[in-house]
Amino acid sequence: MGRIICCGLGPGDPDLISVRADRQIRAATHVAYFRKKGRPGQARRIVEGMLAPDVREYPMEYPVTTEIPFDSPDYAELLAGFYDEWARRLEQIARDADIVVLCEGDPFFYGSFMHLHIRLKGRAAIEVIAGIPGMAGCWNAVGLPIALGDDVMTVLTGTLAEQELTARARGCDALVIMKTGRNLRKVRRALQAAGRLDEAWLIERGTMPGERVARLSDVDATECPYFAVVLVHGRGRRLELAE
Amino acid sequence: MGRIICCGLGPGDPDLISVRADRQIRAATHVAYFRKKGRPGQARRIVEGMLAPDVREYPMEYPVTTEIPFDSPDYAELLAGFYDEWARRLEQIARDADIVVLCEGDPFFYGSFMHLHIRLKGRAAIEVIAGIPGMAGCWNAVGLPIALGDDVMTVLTGTLAEQELTARARGCDALVIMKTGRNLRKVRRALQAAGRLDEAWLIERGTMPGERVARLSDVDATECPYFAVVLVHGRGRRLELAE
Repeated sequence: MGRIICCGLGPGDPDLISVRADRQIRAATHVAYFRKKGRPGQARRIVEGMLAPDVREYPMEYPVTTEIPFDSPDYAELLAGFYDEWARRLEQIARDADIVVLCEGDPFFYGSFMHLHIRLKGRAAIEVIAGIPGMAGCWNAVGLPIALGDDVMTVLTGTLAEQELTARARGCDALVIMKTGRNLRKVRRALQAAGRLDEAWLIERGTMPGERVARLSDVDATECPYFAVVLVHGRGRRLELAE
Repeated sequence: MGRIICCGLGPGDPDLISVRADRQIRAATHVAYFRKKGRPGQARRIVEGMLAPDVREYPMEYPVTTEIPFDSPDYAELLAGFYDEWARRLEQIARDADIVVLCEGDPFFYGSFMHLHIRLKGRAAIEVIAGIPGMAGCWNAVGLPIALGDDVMTVLTGTLAEQELTARARGCDALVIMKTGRNLRKVRRALQAAGRLDEAWLIERGTMPGERVARLSDVDATECPYFAVVLVHGRGRRLELAE
């Protein structure tokens, strides 16, 4: 009887994988990971050179369609079927052997693995190994503490409505905005309206080759890569006391 | 010319330290860490068995006093002097050799290292290695995703005023409350007032020996250990679509 072992890979630098996940990945006989069709996939790229030569790989390729808009109920149904099918296949593999599922960042923090996790609970033995969330790799790349003292930190996705982004950016000390990508222009407008654009950083590919750290106000682009995070650092409520 | 290498230790299980930090810790000739006077210290405990036999250790012991309340300006001044002194000593050591500074969780996420970092910038070569934040170890211990889809996540400290805790607990999807300890009663009242007590978990010593996961509503205690976090899980805004 095998297990499904989901390994958090951290922000992208393979050296930032935990000792436990590193050991599981190197010893794996079966490895699964999500990717877009026809792309190598970020998770697979992170473990390049770490896998055993005779490992069996299972790329879980998201269904693509050019005919159905990705936010429609039809696409959601397609996606649900995709997760159902892979849950079934992983369950089957785990009857005889351990299978490692690779997951960028921390699996329980906005990770895709949860779609499998919710389906597999009670059907297979599951182990999840925590990873450094992608956002931590990004604030490490800036080289400043993201939150300190009694700071309130808010984590948002750039997919939210502009008005909500603005209100929430106003109402916190430290701020992390994920899923910026195509929402970069909206995110910038929201931060401007909240009076926080000048404090904001854009980090692309944090800890990965091609890492780029810039003040958001200096960035003209209207889009950025998927692995990009916008940060506003907290200043440490009540901490002035100690300095 | 040496470096000051701050290693994030993650939530407590030494197996969750990153490969890079693990390597630095095992190879270290000089190791510094914070602790309370007369206590082994959590950071030092995590690396037990990993240090070289001839390593030089520098316990940085917080100044204690029974005469000055810890939130007074006098105590803050005492603390500032303590950080000044250790910044000076670390700078001196780093003139000849690398020195590893141990830091629980992720150093840039509510970590004590930032007090040294702010003083040492420009005076010594500093490298900070990210770690899995303590809160990630805690939500991993519950075994459920903390945030998914378009969830808004808020991170708070239990030291905030009850009214602010209540308002913020109302205004988010996923919630993390750190520094619970002596504030546990206040935190429980705030969550009750926000209508979220029934969803809340208390995780003590996440990923460490003595780990305890409980529904907060089942916990009668008025205090909890320092390494305790209260969590309310997000439910995945807009994610229902895909399930």
